[in-house]
Amino acid sequence: MAIDAMGGDHGPHVTIPAALKCLARDPELNIVLVGLQDVVEAELRMRRGKTSSRLRIHPATEVVAMDESPALAMRNKKDSSMRVAIDLVKSGEANACVSAGNTGALMATARFVLKMLPGIERPAIAAEMPTVKGHTYVLDMGANVDCSAEHLLQFGIMGAMLVSALEQNEAPSVGLLNVGEEEIKGNEIVKQAADLLRSSGLNFYGNVEGNDIFKGTTDVVVCDGFVGNIALKSSEGLAKMIATMLREEFKRNMFTRMAGFIALPVLNAFKRRVDPRRYNGATLLGLRGIVIKSHGSADRFAFEHAIEQAVREVRSGVLNRITQQMATLHKEVA
Amino acid sequence: MAIDAMGGDHGPHVTIPAALKCLARDPELNIVLVGLQDVVEAELRMRRGKTSSRLRIHPATEVVAMDESPALAMRNKKDSSMRVAIDLVKSGEANACVSAGNTGALMATARFVLKMLPGIERPAIAAEMPTVKGHTYVLDMGANVDCSAEHLLQFGIMGAMLVSALEQNEAPSVGLLNVGEEEIKGNEIVKQAADLLRSSGLNFYGNVEGNDIFKGTTDVVVCDGFVGNIALKSSEGLAKMIATMLREEFKRNMFTRMAGFIALPVLNAFKRRVDPRRYNGATLLGLRGIVIKSHGSADRFAFEHAIEQAVREVRSGVLNRITQQMATLHKEVA
Repeated sequence: MAIDAMGGDHGPHVTIPAALKCLARDPELNIVLVGLQDVVEAELRMRRGKTSSRLRIHPATEVVAMDESPALAMRNKKDSSMRVAIDLVKSGEANACVSAGNTGALMATARFVLKMLPGIERPAIAAEMPTVKGHTYVLDMGANVDCSAEHLLQFGIMGAMLVSALEQNEAPSVGLLNVGEEEIKGNEIVKQAADLLRSSGLNFYGNVEGNDIFKGTTDVVVCDGFVGNIALKSSEGLAKMIATMLREEFKRNMFTRMAGFIALPVLNAFKRRVDPRRYNGATLLGLRGIVIKSHGSADRFAFEHAIEQAVREVRSGVLNRITQQMATLHKEVA
Repeated sequence: MAIDAMGGDHGPHVTIPAALKCLARDPELNIVLVGLQDVVEAELRMRRGKTSSRLRIHPATEVVAMDESPALAMRNKKDSSMRVAIDLVKSGEANACVSAGNTGALMATARFVLKMLPGIERPAIAAEMPTVKGHTYVLDMGANVDCSAEHLLQFGIMGAMLVSALEQNEAPSVGLLNVGEEEIKGNEIVKQAADLLRSSGLNFYGNVEGNDIFKGTTDVVVCDGFVGNIALKSSEGLAKMIATMLREEFKRNMFTRMAGFIALPVLNAFKRRVDPRRYNGATLLGLRGIVIKSHGSADRFAFEHAIEQAVREVRSGVLNRITQQMATLHKEVA
């Protein structure tokens, strides 16, 4: 596992302790920390971590800033921790890489270095979301703001293969995010995508609406990146608003504070269930390699989850599944 | 005020008691109940309501079903309660109409009967959403699944004039929903819309993201109907999921039940603050008349809010504001 140790708002202060924790928990895991040699070494010393056969440092001399232009970062920083971590996946030295860095730069660099899987035109960001029943995967979460019907079909295939590999579910259900369940609803692209998905051989459920994401109606929800990003961000905003208002109500006076104190264990149990950190680690699907994007503001606990997501994808053979499914599809078409 | 008494999942059982309640509260309000004469009379009798100079019945012989095709409903049901209520607005007998009926049919019929305001090409659905700071208006919420940059500009103008009329706010801030705040982000239509909004004379804030809706970053949020519908529905879904999970946690065992009992007043205070019924009543903006759409599943309390929204729009002169602003804009362009 190659880890971009410098990425994210907190860089090595988060990535390195998370890596050490994952190594301690998983005896078959090997990690390569990619970053500025002295910074990584200093952080390792501080955390009492030691390099070993399972943990080594791969130096990189540059760092991509969180607000840097993706195109410029890709062109000018050929020795950035992000780029080198992806290079390690390309060369086969690592099975996957994890970065909390600049999303645009990660996407552009990964696409440039690793190239796309056969039959896939664009990478998509797939993220796990909590539902009443468990969880669902939604893609695309923002990589593509203009999608054709064919792109949406490819997202459907990739999402289904991801879930089928991760969860030993041979026919995960796929829903197409739309403004109504009826077939006549939606814009032209979505209508065409529905036709393609219907004849794709996937377990296509049909159109789903925004509320179906959290109802857990389907195992996979497909949408274009513009819509996916808005759905994700507005949900994040609503969750924060609810948390703020609940806090305000419990802090209103002495009695409500006492009620809050008594209800605290219950509220904490609830918080654990919807903790977004447990869902950290979005997958860049469609590449010839596994690349996991952690939230930039991830803390140690959240970054551990991103690493674990990468491990699960490697062990379950997600890439092979997608490749095989695309090959089958092409054979059918030919 | 013309009320489509038959519309919605519960029809007269909800619309008529809500109308009676509003009449009792607001001495200057006059209501026309439009619907099947005997059904409306029966419900009125049951609720001990009496027709008067302030409350009369206008008969209609047909009802549009909730799942009926909008085009067919418009063509074939010329004496539906929905159509007749809109006709009353057209003829000037009513200042506004409120319906909880089939959204598509309401939109199509209102557009056909009332026509658009000068300079506005398409109607948009504007809905009030709660925020950390208070509330914000988001449009379009689903009337238009494919929008041009000009449409988004028109939505911005209509939204700003709505807020300016309702809240005596001369320069409400307008945000454009996008996948990032930077100007380079988003698809082509959104980028063009940003340019148009920037030179529109409105108080344009710039791009906002999904989470800004609930942060209350701007007074108005503009987006196309596809995105707006998905944002609204996913937020509804998330809110329901949170409510379900909170309930589950409080019901886990004897202790959590007790904690829930003690926390109940606080939880109820919180619930009142985010109660979606208080935000019921979306406005169909852009028409030569005020038409308010209530949620189909609205209960009496929610439907009262839809009636009150209509009253506020009539009294604050929303239509004049939009017309004047469009005229100013056209003069500037000419």
